[in-house]
Order: sequence, then C-alpha cells, then structure tokens
Amino acid sequence: MCELLGMSANVPTDICFSFSGLVQRGGGTGPHKDGWGITFYEGKGCRTFKDPLPSFESPIARLVQEYPIKSHSVIAHIRQANRGKVALENTHPFTRELWGRHWTYAHNGQLKGYRRLETGQFRPVGGTDSERAFCWLLHKLSQRFPQTPKNWTSVFRYIAELANELSALGVFNMLLSDGRYLMAYCSTHLHWITRRSPFGKAMLIDQDIEVDFMQQTTAHDVVTVVATQPLTGNETWHKIMPGEWKLFCLGEGQKGL
Amino acid sequence: MCELLGMSANVPTDICFSFSGLVQRGGGTGPHKDGWGITFYEGKGCRTFKDPLPSFESPIARLVQEYPIKSHSVIAHIRQANRGKVALENTHPFTRELWGRHWTYAHNGQLKGYRRLETGQFRPVGGTDSERAFCWLLHKLSQRFPQTPKNWTSVFRYIAELANELSALGVFNMLLSDGRYLMAYCSTHLHWITRRSPFGKAMLIDQDIEVDFMQQTTAHDVVTVVATQPLTGNETWHKIMPGEWKLFCLGEGQKGL
Repeated sequence: MCELLGMSANVPTDICFSFSGLVQRGGGTGPHKDGWGITFYEGKGCRTFKDPLPSFESPIARLVQEYPIKSHSVIAHIRQANRGKVALENTHPFTRELWGRHWTYAHNGQLKGYRRLETGQFRPVGGTDSERAFCWLLHKLSQRFPQTPKNWTSVFRYIAELANELSALGVFNMLLSDGRYLMAYCSTHLHWITRRSPFGKAMLIDQDIEVDFMQQTTAHDVVTVVATQPLTGNETWHKIMPGEWKLFCLGEGQKGL
Repeated sequence: MCELLGMSANVPTDICFSFSGLVQRGGGTGPHKDGWGITFYEGKGCRTFKDPLPSFESPIARLVQEYPIKSHSVIAHIRQANRGKVALENTHPFTRELWGRHWTYAHNGQLKGYRRLETGQFRPVGGTDSERAFCWLLHKLSQRFPQTPKNWTSVFRYIAELANELSALGVFNMLLSDGRYLMAYCSTHLHWITRRSPFGKAMLIDQDIEVDFMQQTTAHDVVTVVATQPLTGNETWHKIMPGEWKLFCLGEGQKGL
C-alpha cells in the first residue's frame, strides 16, 4: 500500500512541514520505500519531483523539504509497490492533460481485473493498476464531456461515480487535482484538516518537528491538508468514511455535492 | 530566443558537465533568464525539473548539477521569453503521452500565425507558440498513425515534414525524444558531437570546468550531445544546416533517413 498527501490553499502555501512528516514514512518510520513523488501547481502550470528511491534518503526529497515552493494545490505520494515493478514510470503522481488543464492523480490501494479497463486515447506508459485506472477515468470523462465542461460540480460528481466503480475492484483511495480543485475519494483511509485563523502550533507524529502556523500565515489564510493517516498528534483530523469523498477549492471544503 | 541541450547515450549517462555550461547562459553568461527545464528518461519513465527562475541562481538547477541522474536520453532548455509570459506552464520541456510513450519536446525560436494550428485532442495549457506547435505535431501524428507505428523511420520522416511546415512560420529549432530516439531539427542553429573511445578531456566555454571523460566512461560508451551553440572550446562540434535534421538512438546517429 502507499500513503497520500494533498493540500489546497487560498494563498500560495508551502507544504514543507507536512511533507517532512510524510517522507519519514518512506522507508524511515513506515515501509513505503518504493519511490515517492510530489506535484505542485503554480497557476495553470505544475511541476513534479519524483524518485524511485526511498524518500527518507532521497536528495531530491531533501530539496523539496528545504526549498519552500508555494502552491495553491499539491499532491504527494509515497509508494509500497504491489502491482507494477519499482520504476520511474510507475511512480506517482501521474499527470495528463484534459480540456487544456493538467490533471494530477495519485492512488493508494490495489485493484483486481484492472487490465479490462478501456483507456481509449489515454494509454498507460507503465504497468500499474493505478495509472491504468487514471487513464480509464480520463477516457470516460473525455467521452462524457467532449468539450470543456462549464459545470464543475457535475464533473466531480461523475468522477465520484467512476471512483465507486473502481473501488468495487479493490481498494481505491485517490487524490485528484486540476490545480484549482482537490478531490479526495476514500475507499478505506483518508483524513483531512482545515487550518484557519486563529492558527496554532502543530507537532508531527513521525519526526520531532513543531511549527507555529501563526508565524507563517495571515488572518485570511485557509489551508486544507488531506493525508492517509493524520500527520500531527495535537490537532483534530476528520476521517472521510469509506465510499465518501470531499472536494476542496482554494482551501475550502465544497458543500452541496 | 532560447538555448537547447539534448543527450543520447548507449549507457545511462549523467549530463552534469554539459548542463553546468548551459545554466551559466541562463542569466549568467547569457540572457536566457526566463526559466529553464530538463527532462531525464530512465527506461519508459521520465522526470522533469523546471523553474520559472533564472537557471544560474536556481537551487533546483544546483541540485541537477550536483546529483548525477543517469539517463539514455535528456532534453534541456533555457528560456528567453518572447511569446507567452514567464510562468511555469510556459516553461519547456513539454511532455505528453502518445502511443503509450512519453514524448518530450523543447523549442527554440518564434512562430507567426501559430494560433491557427489545429491541435485536436492535445490542447495547450499555456500561451506559447512552442506548446501549441507541439500539440499540433502530436495531433497530426495521431491522425497519421492512429495505432502504434511499427516503422519508426517513417514516423521521424513525417515529423521532419511537419517541422518543415512549422519553420515556414518563423524560427523552429526543436529537440524531441520518446526516451529511445532523440531528434534534432534545425531551422537556424544546432550543433552536435558524438564522444566515443578513446575519450579525452573537454573544457566548458561558459565556466571554468574541465572534465576527463576517460575517468567516467568505458570503452563501449557512445554519447551524443546536441546544443544550440557548442558547449566546449577544445572539441569539434558539427553544425546541423538550416532545414536539416538528425536522429540519434542510443548515442548513434541514424543513417539512411
């Protein structure tokens, strides 16, 4: 299995603190040693750092912890391989273009019968169930919405239907973003927290690091973090129940979905 | 304008030496301060490091110079913006999937009337002439070869025809790779050199760095480097003439095209 981490914020925010907790689980405090990756959106553009090496000893992961890249939307993943060998092409997150936007996706879980998923013009490059499920999802979306959709709520509702189909094939926890929205679909484990004023202090569970968000934020900042398991021990994280999903935009949870 | 750098090698090889020369031109010895990027292929997978900041002062560029990522195929680019603002989505190289492979592309030049290029299902994310030309090229390829082609020579011949059409719109120097092949199309300036046994020493033009390739290679290694302008002063680089192109596979130039 793997661990997921996502962020959605109303002002460009760095994720150094949360990512420092995650990378420890990549071969340090956790067994997810088969690669890691993180995608940052800056405007419509995005960039991904990834490595098939364990994150807790990767020089690239160290750079990402030390170099604060400020972003509205982030997706990160550390991998414990099951389907698909340890290789760069099998390292999450995966990014593909649809409707002139980059879509980024990471999956935690394992699917059976995934080779039967039709992917149309979105062909997988690697051998994972995860990438194939992503290609299938984009293919279904491009069929349902051949033109750029106007009603994004209906798009994400349809993605949730597709995610229900995928989770019938096994375990399917997913983070998905187009740079504006962050969608979290839970099949077994996913937790989230929204931090806003008045900000307090937080302590990582996996590493002896404390941060005082008050020092780093303004009163208007709203930052949501989503993770497989809570990353801090002194805050209250919300569990997403199996079969449920959450949509965040600029840090705020979207209602009425 | 911009500068391009590409590598094709028969054994996984790092590009730290050549990249160190290129980054100096990114705001140091050259005016290409509007971002930079580099894509490494490892097997079918690839990863890109990019930054809209000048390369000569980018911490990410420093990591790439110091952390030897070994690759069969590399494409790098430093940008001096003309069409499209300085932004991450406009930073080369661009990577898209076709036929289940990642295709990576970087462009040096400037095109007129590029907004009329039809791109079908490959929609540009940013605002550059370069990305639009890449999307058009992939769209034309997917129309000509709806299934994965078997004859790769005919694919690259067709790409060269398309590149001829693009260079009729302005200046179009291009590097393109699918991880196995590296194609270099010249509209004004591109140079290449193939290094093989017996290896010698090389000295960068832009920085006081010398390398002794003998220390880093075996007698079987074949490494081709392609660059807008020669990167070393003591070796003989070959110029690709305007309207001509070269195809490399595992370091070796392909003949009979």
